[in-house]
Amino acid sequence: MIRPGYLFWSGNRAGPEPENARMSAAEPQIDPKARQESVADAALRQVSEPDSQVVVFPEDQPLRLDSGRDIGPFTIAYRTYGTLNSDKSNAILICHALTGDQHVANTHPVTGKGGWWETLVGPGKPIDTDRFFVICSNILGGCMGSTGPASKNPATGRPYGVEFPVITIGDMVNAQARMIDHLGIGQLFSVIGGSMGGMQVLQWCARYKDRVLTAMPIATAPWHTAQNIAFHEVGRQAVMADPDWQGGAYYGTQARPSRGLAVARMAAHITYLSEKALQDKFGRGLQNRDQHSFSFDADFKIESYLRHQGSTFVDRFDANSYLYITRAMDYFDLEAEYGRLANAFTGTRTQFCVVSFTSDWLYPTRDNKEIVKALNGVAANVSFVEIESDKGHDAFLLREDVFSATVNGFLNAAAKKRGIA
Amino acid sequence: MIRPGYLFWSGNRAGPEPENARMSAAEPQIDPKARQESVADAALRQVSEPDSQVVVFPEDQPLRLDSGRDIGPFTIAYRTYGTLNSDKSNAILICHALTGDQHVANTHPVTGKGGWWETLVGPGKPIDTDRFFVICSNILGGCMGSTGPASKNPATGRPYGVEFPVITIGDMVNAQARMIDHLGIGQLFSVIGGSMGGMQVLQWCARYKDRVLTAMPIATAPWHTAQNIAFHEVGRQAVMADPDWQGGAYYGTQARPSRGLAVARMAAHITYLSEKALQDKFGRGLQNRDQHSFSFDADFKIESYLRHQGSTFVDRFDANSYLYITRAMDYFDLEAEYGRLANAFTGTRTQFCVVSFTSDWLYPTRDNKEIVKALNGVAANVSFVEIESDKGHDAFLLREDVFSATVNGFLNAAAKKRGIA
Repeated sequence: MIRPGYLFWSGNRAGPEPENARMSAAEPQIDPKARQESVADAALRQVSEPDSQVVVFPEDQPLRLDSGRDIGPFTIAYRTYGTLNSDKSNAILICHALTGDQHVANTHPVTGKGGWWETLVGPGKPIDTDRFFVICSNILGGCMGSTGPASKNPATGRPYGVEFPVITIGDMVNAQARMIDHLGIGQLFSVIGGSMGGMQVLQWCARYKDRVLTAMPIATAPWHTAQNIAFHEVGRQAVMADPDWQGGAYYGTQARPSRGLAVARMAAHITYLSEKALQDKFGRGLQNRDQHSFSFDADFKIESYLRHQGSTFVDRFDANSYLYITRAMDYFDLEAEYGRLANAFTGTRTQFCVVSFTSDWLYPTRDNKEIVKALNGVAANVSFVEIESDKGHDAFLLREDVFSATVNGFLNAAAKKRGIA
Repeated sequence: MIRPGYLFWSGNRAGPEPENARMSAAEPQIDPKARQESVADAALRQVSEPDSQVVVFPEDQPLRLDSGRDIGPFTIAYRTYGTLNSDKSNAILICHALTGDQHVANTHPVTGKGGWWETLVGPGKPIDTDRFFVICSNILGGCMGSTGPASKNPATGRPYGVEFPVITIGDMVNAQARMIDHLGIGQLFSVIGGSMGGMQVLQWCARYKDRVLTAMPIATAPWHTAQNIAFHEVGRQAVMADPDWQGGAYYGTQARPSRGLAVARMAAHITYLSEKALQDKFGRGLQNRDQHSFSFDADFKIESYLRHQGSTFVDRFDANSYLYITRAMDYFDLEAEYGRLANAFTGTRTQFCVVSFTSDWLYPTRDNKEIVKALNGVAANVSFVEIESDKGHDAFLLREDVFSATVNGFLNAAAKKRGIA
């Protein structure tokens, strides 16, 4: 008899961490036994009581969305690091990626792991919090304290679910701009982000030209391609196929669409890593066994790794947020919005540094070069760096010396020019 | 209110075929309204009453599997085309891919579409059925008449489900060899197949050296890489996450894991096409609308296409077969089986023609070259052709002149040498 191998939602997930469970070894481990309950509960708490600063925009100051709908009241949860200088010239906004959040450089309140960009952000690091005032907000639509589908819909008193309006990258950026207004900052010294964070950077530069002195769009694209949309659609269908999704109204029930969301995460995760990275790290290596089990167990290390990625993700992330954020990314198309991509940047005085990674097949160098080409088309100040890496898309989250030096060099030069000590 | 976009299992699937639903326009369409009931019923009938020739190996002639288990009785369903000549020297075995079957060059009994390799196989075609006796059998583990998980387990009288033994590519090939014995054929003039079919070709050449005069492994690999396994594992988890899977014992119940299998198919389908093929065919084109719906509907053509691929697949294919066959592919590793890949071919006298396609990222040229390298390592007679195509892995199933000419040229020359009229 074959033992079915659907381990990750069968209650077995408090088992030992797969040997190669994480590509990055830098982060501390939380107790896996304690995780199952506490992580999911802690994640749910963050929706309404985030371990963050928050700003609440009242009902009479709604946000007009790109869809034409208004949302209000709405909350933006954010973290800051360092000190804003007296002329407010040293603020850097960091924009997070699909499953990231505002906890850039502090211990994560849900997972207990380190901040997602501690490789780059902190005292003495390339984005030096001794020098810059670093801000990161949870995106609109997220699940870490900013208003999203898990938040209470004031019209019904229940969580929004699929009553939440479909949002865009532009909406996320408009909400961030309101938060930056709230902080009393006119111009940002820099806006920096990778992947979906890079899309926000581009959208900032298009919509708020005078408010962005320098910009670093990293490992990103000016539009989502058919293949990008295809992978996201698979993930959304996996979530919505899960009966526990319940048409999005799973909040307060005993069930959540964890199985569907885990499958979505597994599929997406493959796109974050290069073929070579997977092969070098896992190859055909077997997990805790010498030979094939002739079953559907996780015989291979790569299977075990993916299942682990799926099961840990669902504890910390809201499935509806996943649907809304992937949709926003799929809608992203600066060329369509401005007629011609270059038009998005007409008149820009922002200084750009565009960064791509050689083995990134999700947003390959080609896509990043489209940005550079458009910026060149309006005679913008732009430098472009393609960094040699075999780590795939996730390279921007990993320790990589040339990347660190690039960020450091770009910001140093610009800070000197701007007169930041 | 957002209308949830999980259209493909909500009873809406008898709707209009998406404009760009199929990459290949050559196949006739069956009536989509009649499809939903009849295709699933017809598919189920094929398990026990296939529209094929069959050979049944009785219980006292079981097949010893690579796992060490025996299976018996077992049935192999197959189709033949053309006539076996008097000295039985003109037989070509075609090996099908993951979701293919024995219906290479005739109307498919379930879908009503043309045979899956009608571009290559037929009278006057590169694999000329006026000249060659062409055989194709449904693989062991399949669902089109050969014994698989949907077949009746003689020990229980019920369908096997997950009681079916986990099989390998080697087991498929051993079962084929028994079928070839049954036909009274000693040596095959050629063994030809693409993708998983190519893996079977390689396994034939390794296990039955004297029985293969020529061989064409196409768009294939000598082992499954970590990324290959990763995509399959996502698909398996999608199936097993579907509550309708019922631990594999869904036969005879009202439910089948159609939602999970559709998600699996959608994810896999992305890997069959190149990024460029998707972009050229679909790009960011919208499906039956002028602007974004701001919902989870299939706004984009690519979404509609993928949903269609998912929904039509589940009608014709058994979910458990999908689990077993993907597992067999993941286990495939000729290097591990023989210690060194070249050892698999030691002493071979087979003449090989290895074919790859430039834009195939599932089994890229690199993997196919490993086969060539190993064959060169034992001084085998091997030619290698890399065909320029932007269609991705599925190029081997599409009309492609250089590919047709390659197959035609290779077989012609070998037939002349062998004295086949």
